[in-house]
Amino acid sequence: MSGNADIAVIGLGVMGANLARNFRSRGLTVAVHNRRTEVTEHLLAEHGAEGFVACTTPEELVAALKTPRVVVLMVTAGQAVDAVIASIGEHLEPGDILVDGGNSHYADTERRSVAAAAHDLLYVGMGVSGGEEGALLGPSMMPGGDTRAWPVIRPLMEKAAAVGQGTCVAWCGRGGAGHYTKMVHNGIEYGDMQLLGEVFTLMRDGLGMDAPAQAEVFEGWNRGRLSSFLVEITAGIVASRDPQGAGPLVDAILDEAGQKGTGRWTSVQAVEAGVPLPTITAAVDARAISSRRAQRTAARAVLPRGVARIPELAVEDLEQALYAAKLASYAQGFDLLRTASEERGYGIDLGEVARIWTAGCIIRAAFLGRVREAFQRDPELPSLVLDPSFAEELATALPAWRRVVAAAVIAGIPVPALSASLAWIDQVRGERGAAQLIQAQRDWFGAHTYRRLDAPDAPIHTDWASLERLHR
Amino acid sequence: MSGNADIAVIGLGVMGANLARNFRSRGLTVAVHNRRTEVTEHLLAEHGAEGFVACTTPEELVAALKTPRVVVLMVTAGQAVDAVIASIGEHLEPGDILVDGGNSHYADTERRSVAAAAHDLLYVGMGVSGGEEGALLGPSMMPGGDTRAWPVIRPLMEKAAAVGQGTCVAWCGRGGAGHYTKMVHNGIEYGDMQLLGEVFTLMRDGLGMDAPAQAEVFEGWNRGRLSSFLVEITAGIVASRDPQGAGPLVDAILDEAGQKGTGRWTSVQAVEAGVPLPTITAAVDARAISSRRAQRTAARAVLPRGVARIPELAVEDLEQALYAAKLASYAQGFDLLRTASEERGYGIDLGEVARIWTAGCIIRAAFLGRVREAFQRDPELPSLVLDPSFAEELATALPAWRRVVAAAVIAGIPVPALSASLAWIDQVRGERGAAQLIQAQRDWFGAHTYRRLDAPDAPIHTDWASLERLHR
Repeated sequence: MSGNADIAVIGLGVMGANLARNFRSRGLTVAVHNRRTEVTEHLLAEHGAEGFVACTTPEELVAALKTPRVVVLMVTAGQAVDAVIASIGEHLEPGDILVDGGNSHYADTERRSVAAAAHDLLYVGMGVSGGEEGALLGPSMMPGGDTRAWPVIRPLMEKAAAVGQGTCVAWCGRGGAGHYTKMVHNGIEYGDMQLLGEVFTLMRDGLGMDAPAQAEVFEGWNRGRLSSFLVEITAGIVASRDPQGAGPLVDAILDEAGQKGTGRWTSVQAVEAGVPLPTITAAVDARAISSRRAQRTAARAVLPRGVARIPELAVEDLEQALYAAKLASYAQGFDLLRTASEERGYGIDLGEVARIWTAGCIIRAAFLGRVREAFQRDPELPSLVLDPSFAEELATALPAWRRVVAAAVIAGIPVPALSASLAWIDQVRGERGAAQLIQAQRDWFGAHTYRRLDAPDAPIHTDWASLERLHR
Repeated sequence: MSGNADIAVIGLGVMGANLARNFRSRGLTVAVHNRRTEVTEHLLAEHGAEGFVACTTPEELVAALKTPRVVVLMVTAGQAVDAVIASIGEHLEPGDILVDGGNSHYADTERRSVAAAAHDLLYVGMGVSGGEEGALLGPSMMPGGDTRAWPVIRPLMEKAAAVGQGTCVAWCGRGGAGHYTKMVHNGIEYGDMQLLGEVFTLMRDGLGMDAPAQAEVFEGWNRGRLSSFLVEITAGIVASRDPQGAGPLVDAILDEAGQKGTGRWTSVQAVEAGVPLPTITAAVDARAISSRRAQRTAARAVLPRGVARIPELAVEDLEQALYAAKLASYAQGFDLLRTASEERGYGIDLGEVARIWTAGCIIRAAFLGRVREAFQRDPELPSLVLDPSFAEELATALPAWRRVVAAAVIAGIPVPALSASLAWIDQVRGERGAAQLIQAQRDWFGAHTYRRLDAPDAPIHTDWASLERLHR
């Protein structure tokens, strides 16, 4: 049995309801269902029933859809997804498409893909970024999974997606590629937010700038190469007056950052994959440190307090540091995407990923258009920082970036992400370093062997204690 | 059936063979078995048969032992452990004890503990540190698991363990506590090695010190509060002449650091547990960056090269920076141990852990005696850096530490672990910071709410775009 609805949305929380309204606003007929019927009723009462087909059961929902059916799940990641798949799956037919549009872990998506394929259902894990507003007006969408689903869902998703450099939806690849891409997006988002937080504290505590002056700087940056949604809202935030006081609201906020887990997933996955992501990991760690409040309170009673002013620091240097660190962070994130794509056979097109992030999502920025160009110029680029145009900007920014980090370190203002990004660059461009000593230590105590620069293919073990010592 | 052997060792690779010889040298009769019989024969031929009972099958091994039997597995971590447990397990009797002395992941140990308990076998996961020499002469041993096993294995392990502040073996706790403790030990070892590597590059590339001068500094430090096995061998390494040349051997080594995985496990576990370990993670990342050789080679063709001299840097400052960063790193590692112990119900005694690391293991150091004292003074210490004596040293070291990191940053010499440790301290002691802005951003785009300093118990959501803006 089939009906005339073009697409279904299951789960009508804010994200699901907004996505359903988005599909409807593009002329699609949308079958909607929620476990609690009153949620569905509320959606129709609030926003009108036309264009929606309200379904009280999974059977009804399936019957309402054109074939092949496209069912988008917008339920909380975790067991709820499995439960909904079980309840709807038995009513679907071979060739129907299940799209998980929630924030699922890519490994869950891979497991569910395999299970769905056994029932001839086409499974898609789709990252959706943009928050509530994005879901309603046009999110960035990152679908991946069973490739046969793409031609069917493509025209539907293209109607709903944001428009930046083209329509912000692209097929990310096989298996869990869509949710993996979304995970990395969120990791990059953590990095961007931490870097902005560090620059904000440098302006406020280091330079002693007042809120309007800070806002002016962020607004200026938002007109330049740093132009982005996060810089735009940062400008708005720093100048927002506390409704309960005279000063900026941001100064009244408890500095204890929450996290929902996707940043952590990115860090864990990076360590497991052997891809260093120091910027993102510093951001994840910074949130964790901030939320260990009891330890911090105890520390303030014992350790030296306060930070110093750094009036000599130039705001132009801050822009260079922020831009260069952001570039380093994106280079790391795309490194991870490339590595995962190769190891897992996803087949992710990095340029396309950059393109669909140009609008709709939290990290949307003009900068991503340039990232796309870099990967179009050279799809095999070993790192974003090695693109000639980015490398040139990086070389220009390095002296200022060093001045900013050094000044913050002396002043005691923590800049973990700015400094981890810089250390990453200095390691990547380094000709010789700490690893030489580490290999010698490992060989000394564990006979782990080392290799010589002049014969790199032959592992050697040395009885270090018996070597001749150099003397003056 | 039972025999007169006191203990059995299965798996006679270098670590297993040396541990078996160690037990024998303390007057114990040791049943030995290896899957390949020639390995057992080789051990006896090489080191004499007296005191060993060579067994060609698991049955024979079981028959050779006094009851309750104590069988120590020294096989490669992973499936080999499960295979050996399966082959030996069927011959053991209720109350017999299986000790996994390999580098197993704590989660595997927890799984095996449960399976063994179902057969009334007492399972112990025991971290063994000290490399080949430690295994032979006295390692640091970290057993954990079925508490009923401890009174039985204690006298045996105490004979074989290193002697530092007492005998370097202690019951770590329930389940996977032993292997968890060993994992954190290895993470701390990664941090120590990276910090020494950074200080080494600062001396060589920043200060332009020659090998004998570097060795002299490390030797001096090894007579002070930094006295440790790793500083001792570092002094030996930097002065070792290249047998194929005139300069130091360390300069001939390819700077591509290997890793066997336990450092990564620590980083992953820390991120999952929400305990920040920036020093150890910087060390893990540094090894990963060093081993991405193709990317580094490409980078050297494009990015600015070289580092600057920093002749103004004082060697005394380096000592302060190294010591303080090491302290920060240990504070993080013990944080993780405490958190895991609480969350997993291990019941780890942090002071005892510090004590059994005073000798035998790779991180053995005088410093660990002081760590032990700190936890003895206050078992509830929220962080090692808050112990009054350590806090005082830290306050003294901070200015020098800042000078070192700032100078390295300006010179382009990567010091990821020194700087991540400093950023951690500055975050822990910080009164307000980046998290204030991050909470505002999260509330703006995701309605995640924030809390106010003046009403910390009430989460608030604000429509940021509609707030009044502050102006000059």
